[in-house]
Amino acid sequence: MSKDIPPGSPPGSKFVYSQEPFRFHLGGELPGLTQAYETWGALNPARDNAVMILTGLSPSAHAASHGDDPSDGWWEPMVGPGKPIDTERFFVVCINSLGSCRGSTGPASINPETGRPWRLDFPELSVQDIAAAADLVLEHLGIEQLHALVGPSLGGMSSLAWLQRNPERARHFLCISSAAAAEPFAIAIRSLQRECIVSDRLWREGQYSDDEWPETGMRLARKLGMMSYRSPQEWSKRFGRLPQKRYTPRRFGMDFAIESYLESAAVKFVRGFDPCCYLYLSQLMDTFNAAEGHVSLQAALAPIQLQSTRIIGVNTDILWPLYQQQELAAAFEANGVATDFVPLNSIQGHDSFLVDYDRFRPAVGDYLRATE
Amino acid sequence: MSKDIPPGSPPGSKFVYSQEPFRFHLGGELPGLTQAYETWGALNPARDNAVMILTGLSPSAHAASHGDDPSDGWWEPMVGPGKPIDTERFFVVCINSLGSCRGSTGPASINPETGRPWRLDFPELSVQDIAAAADLVLEHLGIEQLHALVGPSLGGMSSLAWLQRNPERARHFLCISSAAAAEPFAIAIRSLQRECIVSDRLWREGQYSDDEWPETGMRLARKLGMMSYRSPQEWSKRFGRLPQKRYTPRRFGMDFAIESYLESAAVKFVRGFDPCCYLYLSQLMDTFNAAEGHVSLQAALAPIQLQSTRIIGVNTDILWPLYQQQELAAAFEANGVATDFVPLNSIQGHDSFLVDYDRFRPAVGDYLRATE
Repeated sequence: MSKDIPPGSPPGSKFVYSQEPFRFHLGGELPGLTQAYETWGALNPARDNAVMILTGLSPSAHAASHGDDPSDGWWEPMVGPGKPIDTERFFVVCINSLGSCRGSTGPASINPETGRPWRLDFPELSVQDIAAAADLVLEHLGIEQLHALVGPSLGGMSSLAWLQRNPERARHFLCISSAAAAEPFAIAIRSLQRECIVSDRLWREGQYSDDEWPETGMRLARKLGMMSYRSPQEWSKRFGRLPQKRYTPRRFGMDFAIESYLESAAVKFVRGFDPCCYLYLSQLMDTFNAAEGHVSLQAALAPIQLQSTRIIGVNTDILWPLYQQQELAAAFEANGVATDFVPLNSIQGHDSFLVDYDRFRPAVGDYLRATE
Repeated sequence: MSKDIPPGSPPGSKFVYSQEPFRFHLGGELPGLTQAYETWGALNPARDNAVMILTGLSPSAHAASHGDDPSDGWWEPMVGPGKPIDTERFFVVCINSLGSCRGSTGPASINPETGRPWRLDFPELSVQDIAAAADLVLEHLGIEQLHALVGPSLGGMSSLAWLQRNPERARHFLCISSAAAAEPFAIAIRSLQRECIVSDRLWREGQYSDDEWPETGMRLARKLGMMSYRSPQEWSKRFGRLPQKRYTPRRFGMDFAIESYLESAAVKFVRGFDPCCYLYLSQLMDTFNAAEGHVSLQAALAPIQLQSTRIIGVNTDILWPLYQQQELAAAFEANGVATDFVPLNSIQGHDSFLVDYDRFRPAVGDYLRATE
């Protein structure tokens, strides 16, 4: 594997370049891979103060600013000295998911045999692969056991897979707006997002280029994504029926502020994320089921030796509804893990953990502060 | 105007062929128009037992079977002898909305000047136009005052516009899963549906043909529509994570039963509704605001002289949430109309009025039975 800085990675990312063959959960193999990660704080001499963050679908490893990259991260108010994930106490590691396009190996990475991106030749990806690849970073850093594992959204699924793989390697688990498996409404939304992309005539079975990019599909997919990430309640309050003024009105659209809001979000995303990576990561959220192969979710999680877990959910989350977090909490509790289910009344839906810091700061900080 | 049977109309439809110029609410004019309608029961000698049904976006005037068309209608369990809308007591008239493609004049109708469909040359359409065109049918039938007006979904908006136009011409109003104006979440969904269609390369600014039809856009739009018409709760119960067996699996989709369900719904719809008509009707739901030009919704509805109204909503409706029906009921009540707000706990979301007859039969029948 090349040790060049992979394209798409934030400037402060570090990399683990594994030369070991990597076998994928559903079959297929790569000769090696790169994992992008960032760290904050210092590993203590006992090497037992590490907190690992596994991310949602699109974020990079740049969760917060640090010396090598002073720009704000995607979870800036949450990670840092004295912040809820306190880098004065913890050595924090955030990992860019395998399959992403922010520095870790994925469908947008160059296939060394062809000199071109893997695209659809990349092996089928699973949440279990994200978890297995994260292990390479911990191995590199010499971390045997985590103080805590933190997983929001897809990161919660990746965390569950990681815990199933490493049942005795974390003491605490903070799960945010995630679930053990997707419900059909969430599957429907993501399936339609994927269909938007593969229906774009410029998708061409992954043979798009910078000049001919499936922008239309990505734009539609992103708008649909935004609808599932936020909440009707928030939009009623924030936009109501206000007219829009940012874009040229067009027939059958772009009259209302909600439409220009979605357009702006889509414009930022369309070229900012690789379509193929998006499809792979979207698909694995539907496929994953932590209970698969077990008689129940409780049985599936039974081997996991945690001292405690806190499972946070949001009442307006359409994509990962609150009862899914409750289900997860019930399974851990039934297994004798000290479990704390925290439903939050945030108005911003699934994205609340990225926006509603007044509620999420204490929900995260109080928990981690109390862990031993 | 030609008196040929318009294409797309059910076999038992009747037609009013108006030769009067029709002026559209937002400007534009047609030299005349056709209104498709169907009737059940008999008008009494006093001509005061008429019930008019204005429909949702896609239904035809064929609400139920009758002598001229024994096939089931879209509201078969609701309309007929002894049924909730009792055709032994009432003379029931159901009207195919202006702008639709089920017999009434719309963008798919032939422009007599060119011999080709109007498409985008059709004037911009408003809910107010649907209401005004419905008047032509009542005039033709010699009905001065309605016993009751029944409007589900878009039909509720059309009914409000009709009542604002004819404040003294209905004694009772049954409003189902509708609202005085769309909320931003509903606008976002419909706007994205429209964008799916106009982004299809075969849309061609309305210059599609039977051979080159914007199927992809229509398919995506319909699937998104289904997500807004049903509810996550229903799908969790009905589909869960069941695999699908009906279609060939394809990469990034078609693994789960929810995906084949949506595919089937889309397949039926893609060629069954005219894309241009869909765009016009979808747009007017976003544009309509019964309170426009008034200081409040209450003020906007103040002139309406009803003896009573029942406003029904469903707790799982994503598209027209329950508080919107409550708002509407509050406005009528504040105006001194005997008002009955009926929230139903149906699991099928917005479509419940088409599916959950155990709840909707009594909610509709009890109300109409009690009216005098």
